[in-house]
Amino acid sequence: MKLSRRSDYALRAVHHCSKHQVGRLHSINVIAESTQVPREFLAKILKDLTDGGILLSHKGIKGGYTLARKPSEINFLDVIEAVDGPMYLSLCTEPAAGKRKKHARCELCTFWTAQEKSIKQTLRKQHFGRYSKGRK
Amino acid sequence: MKLSRRSDYALRAVHHCSKHQVGRLHSINVIAESTQVPREFLAKILKDLTDGGILLSHKGIKGGYTLARKPSEINFLDVIEAVDGPMYLSLCTEPAAGKRKKHARCELCTFWTAQEKSIKQTLRKQHFGRYSKGRK
Repeated sequence: MKLSRRSDYALRAVHHCSKHQVGRLHSINVIAESTQVPREFLAKILKDLTDGGILLSHKGIKGGYTLARKPSEINFLDVIEAVDGPMYLSLCTEPAAGKRKKHARCELCTFWTAQEKSIKQTLRKQHFGRYSKGRK
Repeated sequence: MKLSRRSDYALRAVHHCSKHQVGRLHSINVIAESTQVPREFLAKILKDLTDGGILLSHKGIKGGYTLARKPSEINFLDVIEAVDGPMYLSLCTEPAAGKRKKHARCELCTFWTAQEKSIKQTLRKQHFGRYSKGRK
């Protein structure tokens, strides 16, 4: 079980923006350098975060990204689901998709349903106001 | 964050073997049918589980797989790590590997280190004796 690389990098990018004054523009180059995420991969992630309502993209030479909401109003689950879609811990909790049928209920379902609920709750509680040093 | 498909299937295979009498042989065809895992993919997973000391492989026409230990002595983390290697939740907790340097300590490290510890503890507590119906 692990966080996807996309989510890991997305959390770092939002963490970077949360540490600075609300409204401050962050260029992709500065975020890439600060988070050590390859620029091309980061561009895709920033697009997903913008589409997902976590960041605002400002065009132009002096453009860049700002948080779309206060850091305290963005939590870890918001960021993970913005780049990876709805989080399902196991096949036991995943709904049917495409050709795949919904997994028939099994003895492991109870465990994974409870774990998913607990982990999502923890990720929802972990907001970026914690890292914004008085700029919540 | 999610369980890999390999781990998900491996847990189902071990769950299948745990439900029956200790020492009973389970052919790959029966496990594939019961767990709904594609046979070819399952063969690789069963090999990893055998190499990892979770299953014993018995050769021959009437061969198959048995649990290498009592169901109560096999936990979810054992199975996940047998097929996916050591579990690291995030880049924050992953050690250096190959060309990749160890991630420099950041503000997110504390959160991920605590989460990884807690999730591993839960997976370690979840053993297969729970599913073996009096055959622990």
